[in-house]
Amino acid sequence: MDFSSKLLENAVNEMSQLPGIGKRTALRLVLHLLKQPAQQTENLATAIQQMRELVNFCSNCHNISDTALCEICASQNRNAKIVCVVEDIRDVMAIEATSQYRGHYHVLGGKISPMDGIGPHDLTINSLIQKIEEGKIEELIFALSSTMEGDTTNFYIFKQIEGFNIITTTIARGISVGDELEYADEVTLGRSIVNRIPFENSLKNS
Amino acid sequence: MDFSSKLLENAVNEMSQLPGIGKRTALRLVLHLLKQPAQQTENLATAIQQMRELVNFCSNCHNISDTALCEICASQNRNAKIVCVVEDIRDVMAIEATSQYRGHYHVLGGKISPMDGIGPHDLTINSLIQKIEEGKIEELIFALSSTMEGDTTNFYIFKQIEGFNIITTTIARGISVGDELEYADEVTLGRSIVNRIPFENSLKNS
Repeated sequence: MDFSSKLLENAVNEMSQLPGIGKRTALRLVLHLLKQPAQQTENLATAIQQMRELVNFCSNCHNISDTALCEICASQNRNAKIVCVVEDIRDVMAIEATSQYRGHYHVLGGKISPMDGIGPHDLTINSLIQKIEEGKIEELIFALSSTMEGDTTNFYIFKQIEGFNIITTTIARGISVGDELEYADEVTLGRSIVNRIPFENSLKNS
Repeated sequence: MDFSSKLLENAVNEMSQLPGIGKRTALRLVLHLLKQPAQQTENLATAIQQMRELVNFCSNCHNISDTALCEICASQNRNAKIVCVVEDIRDVMAIEATSQYRGHYHVLGGKISPMDGIGPHDLTINSLIQKIEEGKIEELIFALSSTMEGDTTNFYIFKQIEGFNIITTTIARGISVGDELEYADEVTLGRSIVNRIPFENSLKNS
């Protein structure tokens, strides 16, 4: 693309570094900012700068938090002995939105992915193992996405903690509530039959 | 959404002000910035700030430009008597990419759209009329999108310059080169038959 302004070109190039945003979309966004009051651009720039510079991670669960210990880890009403292993803050938000979980989290910060150059030491696995070694955890719930990377990460952690006497579980995979069986994929439907649960249990949440 | 960090929430809120970017996409973008080196966020923030603060508009055609007069208006090789009326810089870039046009542009900065509160005085129509009054223009090419707003804007300008002795044209609407007739919409196909051109003319660009 041939821009008539270096400033514009620079802004478009930086904006198009974001994932899923190509040059055309970036240009649309930048031209939108130009049409809006200058204050909006100022606010956006300041917000992302401050976020990047001042952001904090909870010293216990590694979730994003403005305080040294996040609200969940600091809460007296949550069971610290149950820990749910998730990839990032979006998964914490999703599980929190269900109001069904009263334990702690452990945010890995990603999944083991050799293709992207992410190994176990780029994640917060060591600090999880340490918590387990200190006997702080009774149950570990794996809640990573069921991709190859997610499964690899689950298995890596599982192998590391084999010697310890803790319960390891994984969230149930199955047909979504409200979905028609005929449209479900075979793997999911297959798993939901193999891992069927006593009918009484299904009445608990309904 | 329930964020555990005010800084994060603020960044997501500002990011989601951009058109076509919802809260979820904004969160994805912001988390991406967090995973990248801090320099990337700094570069993005600086680029959009500088662009918004220092951006200049060509005093003649109102296109975005780093100099007082944009490259096109300053060029000796372009015909200043032919002026193509477009909405914004993206249209200039699209027409320039064809290498088929050697005249000047006039960037309106939008289209007349009462629904969005945009009237003739929010656009650069007055400066266009002034150029016409000064006898600087021989041909005016309307190249706005063929929406209701585009047609309204064309017609408004057309009415304003009725008294002047200039040629007004509009870019040809028709079936795209390479398209099958059977899949073309009726309006376009209809127009392309009504506005048919001598066969010899069609050989010029092929």
